[in-house]
Amino acid sequence: MPFAGFGNMKRHLDEELKKLKEKLFRMGLVVENAIGQSTAALFERDAEKAQRVIKSDQEINLQEIEIDELGHELIALYQPAAVDLRLITMVLKITNDLERMGDQAVNIAEASLIMNQNPPLKPYEYFPKMTEAVSAMVRESLKAFMENDSEMARKILESDDTIDDYNHKIMDEVQTLLGERPQHVRTGVSIIMISHNLERIADLATNIAEDVIYLNRGIDVRHHIRERREEE
Amino acid sequence: MPFAGFGNMKRHLDEELKKLKEKLFRMGLVVENAIGQSTAALFERDAEKAQRVIKSDQEINLQEIEIDELGHELIALYQPAAVDLRLITMVLKITNDLERMGDQAVNIAEASLIMNQNPPLKPYEYFPKMTEAVSAMVRESLKAFMENDSEMARKILESDDTIDDYNHKIMDEVQTLLGERPQHVRTGVSIIMISHNLERIADLATNIAEDVIYLNRGIDVRHHIRERREEE
Repeated sequence: MPFAGFGNMKRHLDEELKKLKEKLFRMGLVVENAIGQSTAALFERDAEKAQRVIKSDQEINLQEIEIDELGHELIALYQPAAVDLRLITMVLKITNDLERMGDQAVNIAEASLIMNQNPPLKPYEYFPKMTEAVSAMVRESLKAFMENDSEMARKILESDDTIDDYNHKIMDEVQTLLGERPQHVRTGVSIIMISHNLERIADLATNIAEDVIYLNRGIDVRHHIRERREEE
Repeated sequence: MPFAGFGNMKRHLDEELKKLKEKLFRMGLVVENAIGQSTAALFERDAEKAQRVIKSDQEINLQEIEIDELGHELIALYQPAAVDLRLITMVLKITNDLERMGDQAVNIAEASLIMNQNPPLKPYEYFPKMTEAVSAMVRESLKAFMENDSEMARKILESDDTIDDYNHKIMDEVQTLLGERPQHVRTGVSIIMISHNLERIADLATNIAEDVIYLNRGIDVRHHIRERREEE
């Protein structure tokens, strides 16, 4: 790096931060795709699709490492001030959240391979709706981060309750079903696990949304929000 | 801070890093205790114990915020070199892992409250063993981090397979049970969920162990290890 005055340094850093965020967004797209494909593999009983999701995990892992390294480099090189530093450590945290979403997509893909060895139980009522709602949360949380939009982030926190609701409905549905047809216990358990995986993805999207709000406010609302929502 | 030469700065930073690690360790103890108490609440059918775990989550959340803020302050104040910077961002990551373990302990405590409204199914065979193994992983992962001990960390990675094994055994046990006595479907599902919560805690302990190895090696073995283990 050639000698640069303070203004130049800051401009360089801003450019680098933009690149960092873009890398994160691209990683998010791959993860979002993995989630969509894993549930498609389930509903369409498509083993090949499931295998592709399992394979894509490697790409996601590599992207995580790349972003992690770039983030650390930027801190070491530019010694950023408080707000920029927060942005970078937040990117490191979000990249970790995305990687975990990718792991959940792999879990869903693996579960779909097992489930589809047996005949389908019945048309799912809440499953596709829950899937769609979770995908939307992932998409919106990344958008909120890219556009630094607290309002959008707050809406995501609200939709987390909808997901919990779907999860409970699916649990009840399976429990009724197993009461009637206990021979399908393996499929029933798989459905519960997948519903749980989707719920975990929604939680991780919520983490991202909380980070966006925090970055904007500069105060830690993360747990306050959680507590408030738990009290409701 | 009074004027200090480079040597002094480094000595100050080392002291601060020690304090940061100690804070993390103390947080770890609280989380470890929450995990132990949540499963005790389950096995002993003790609702009061479960309530205490649910309450302790607030303390854990506050500790996370405190460590998070101290970590950022240290980066801003000392502009640490590569290795120290890695240590700090790793503490930020581990504190997040610990907080998530605390959430899982709350999930277990809440599930125990529901489960214990019904009569116990039967003496659990694998459940207490799995619980003990998971607690050991949490304890060891923190110890490995405090003592910067890669060898210990590697052993933790190996024990993760044991946990997966327990999880499958418990799943099979419940599936057999539900085949025989479908009326217990609610309890059966709760057992599966708790087993899954324990598995998640083990995963998070594995994350910490991988970080310890990474910090020591300076290369990112995280996903390589995962991949190697997936191939086995």
